[in-house]
Amino acid sequence: MKIKTVGIIGDSLEKPELNKIAEEMGRKLASAGITIITGGREGVMGAASRGASSVNKRPETARVIGILPGISKEEGNQHLDYAIPTGIGWARNQIVVLASDIVLAVGGGAGTLSEMAYAWAYNKPVVAFSNVEGWSNKLGGHKIDDKRADSIIKVNSEDEAMRVINDIFSDLHH
Amino acid sequence: MKIKTVGIIGDSLEKPELNKIAEEMGRKLASAGITIITGGREGVMGAASRGASSVNKRPETARVIGILPGISKEEGNQHLDYAIPTGIGWARNQIVVLASDIVLAVGGGAGTLSEMAYAWAYNKPVVAFSNVEGWSNKLGGHKIDDKRADSIIKVNSEDEAMRVINDIFSDLHH
Amino acid sequence: MKIKTVGIIGDSLEKPELNKIAEEMGRKLASAGITIITGGREGVMGAASRGASSVNKRPETARVIGILPGISKEEGNQHLDYAIPTGIGWARNQIVVLASDIVLAVGGGAGTLSEMAYAWAYNKPVVAFSNVEGWSNKLGGHKIDDKRADSIIKVNSEDEAMRVINDIFSDLHH
Amino acid sequence: MKIKTVGIIGDSLEKPELNKIAEEMGRKLASAGITIITGGREGVMGAASRGASSVNKRPETARVIGILPGISKEEGNQHLDYAIPTGIGWARNQIVVLASDIVLAVGGGAGTLSEMAYAWAYNKPVVAFSNVEGWSNKLGGHKIDDKRADSIIKVNSEDEAMRVINDIFSDLHH
Repeated sequence: MKIKTVGIIGDSLEKPELNKIAEEMGRKLASAGITIITGGREGVMGAASRGASSVNKRPETARVIGILPGISKEEGNQHLDYAIPTGIGWARNQIVVLASDIVLAVGGGAGTLSEMAYAWAYNKPVVAFSNVEGWSNKLGGHKIDDKRADSIIKVNSEDEAMRVINDIFSDLHH
Repeated sequence: MKIKTVGIIGDSLEKPELNKIAEEMGRKLASAGITIITGGREGVMGAASRGASSVNKRPETARVIGILPGISKEEGNQHLDYAIPTGIGWARNQIVVLASDIVLAVGGGAGTLSEMAYAWAYNKPVVAFSNVEGWSNKLGGHKIDDKRADSIIKVNSEDEAMRVINDIFSDLHH
Repeated sequence: MKIKTVGIIGDSLEKPELNKIAEEMGRKLASAGITIITGGREGVMGAASRGASSVNKRPETARVIGILPGISKEEGNQHLDYAIPTGIGWARNQIVVLASDIVLAVGGGAGTLSEMAYAWAYNKPVVAFSNVEGWSNKLGGHKIDDKRADSIIKVNSEDEAMRVINDIFSDLHH
Repeated sequence: MKIKTVGIIGDSLEKPELNKIAEEMGRKLASAGITIITGGREGVMGAASRGASSVNKRPETARVIGILPGISKEEGNQHLDYAIPTGIGWARNQIVVLASDIVLAVGGGAGTLSEMAYAWAYNKPVVAFSNVEGWSNKLGGHKIDDKRADSIIKVNSEDEAMRVINDIFSDLHH
């Protein structure tokens, strides 16, 4: 049985407000036995990784995977259990999305926007924090185009995000 | 001296209003001796390719290049001079942008949005039609994030688009 | 601390002689707490995954990761803990290699050859079974080009392969 | 009608013996109205580009395209008509092959070997110079695996290479 994964995407710059949410989501997801996937670098990626890896008695299925743009594992943040260098630059954004069962956006600029667009195009459920600045706020509650019946799900708190994620996994029959 | 290129991005579905603009831009760019780059498929990509290839006494530097998602040249529309299959799926959107000196958006859904995000992240000038529905309209005149001083340039007609494109090429000292 | 990984590459067709070695190597590596990376499909990839996942009281650090060519996790064999669809086709061979600390070849045709070439170009230690047919035999003991001082290390048994792999990890100061 | 393309692959280091052949092949192919595709850098890639672009009264269909590993057109050699930065590193080797109707190898180390392996896997005709050192010599006349009925075609002179290439294009009904 494949392990459940949630991709956490957002700003690579260090923004305390976003990092706080990302770290808390990392902790909550890891405590629930869910592996997190990120782009493996800093900012929201680093904070989510730190949160997940900090969980006491972390379940076996709660690992931290970083899908890196460059060719070296050293490029990854220090909290990764698995650093996966791709060597394909930001085209790796496609892989961050494809490796995730659900994509969770926390703020974000152009890189995050490309990931939300890919997630939509590849039919991945997208959950987006609307109580912060960035593309997760701008797109939360909206459709990216008319090819899907659903919308990007907007959430305003970490608890709400976990409820939504748990509901989606129930629907996916994992 | 490398030949000037403009990437034309937009809906892959056939939308007459968008196709009309794309075809006209293909004609105008080709007449000006500029090569067009597209994702090589249908809709805006096909219309732009058709327009460019239809120019009478087409200048030598006005070719039509399609950067395809799959592994076969057969996947490209019939107007391509060069079909470049990448085999990397929609990750090829990164290459459409990187191969273009300027990116021109005509409408567009999630795929186009990913290309506009990449164009922004890779510091490419982005010109967007604001008189049509889709992401070219939503993002025209706006910034995608704060990492650039400029904005996506919105235009409302083919003539205006050509003036903007010519101005940018003058600035690029081509 | 990042978890140790060994990439296992070889024929995607089912060849009993190769599968037997791959499955045994999967078992031995997993028992030693090493995560295996493969292309996620069948043949040597499937057998290695089966072997690793079959280990009784498998150590926490002995997971099975498949780096898939397509866009769906369903494409992966049933023994994967983590299916990572890349959507970039056989260009994913680069990632299989980059995600691995050491690359181990068991037979193999053109796909395996591309992976051995990438592993060499990216300075990864390559261990190759010489007691079977295929590119692992042809290249074992040889250099691919003059850019490296070392050679591909040839081995003739699973026990020898484990000794070599353990020695390399000792040198890498993991 | 799509323009005929031949991919020229080989050492990126400057080896006079190889460069001489590559430059001559660039000249001959361009004179015959065939576009050449390379990895866009130096060595065999640069020499082939130089040869093709040096042809007097070059036919309109004889352009020089470089498929670059990085994100900048500046990375390409000075003889390219079209520089196509991919941003996917050496994974771009897959695209060099897919964009070519026929692949022609002149010497070569690990990078060239990965391209020959991809060309074989993607069913591209491969022509290889056997009168020079490198992988074109080692694989000329051989099969890479049993999945194809044909072999890599070995040639010993530029004239022979042109005859073989013309024959293949006749068979492809271009």
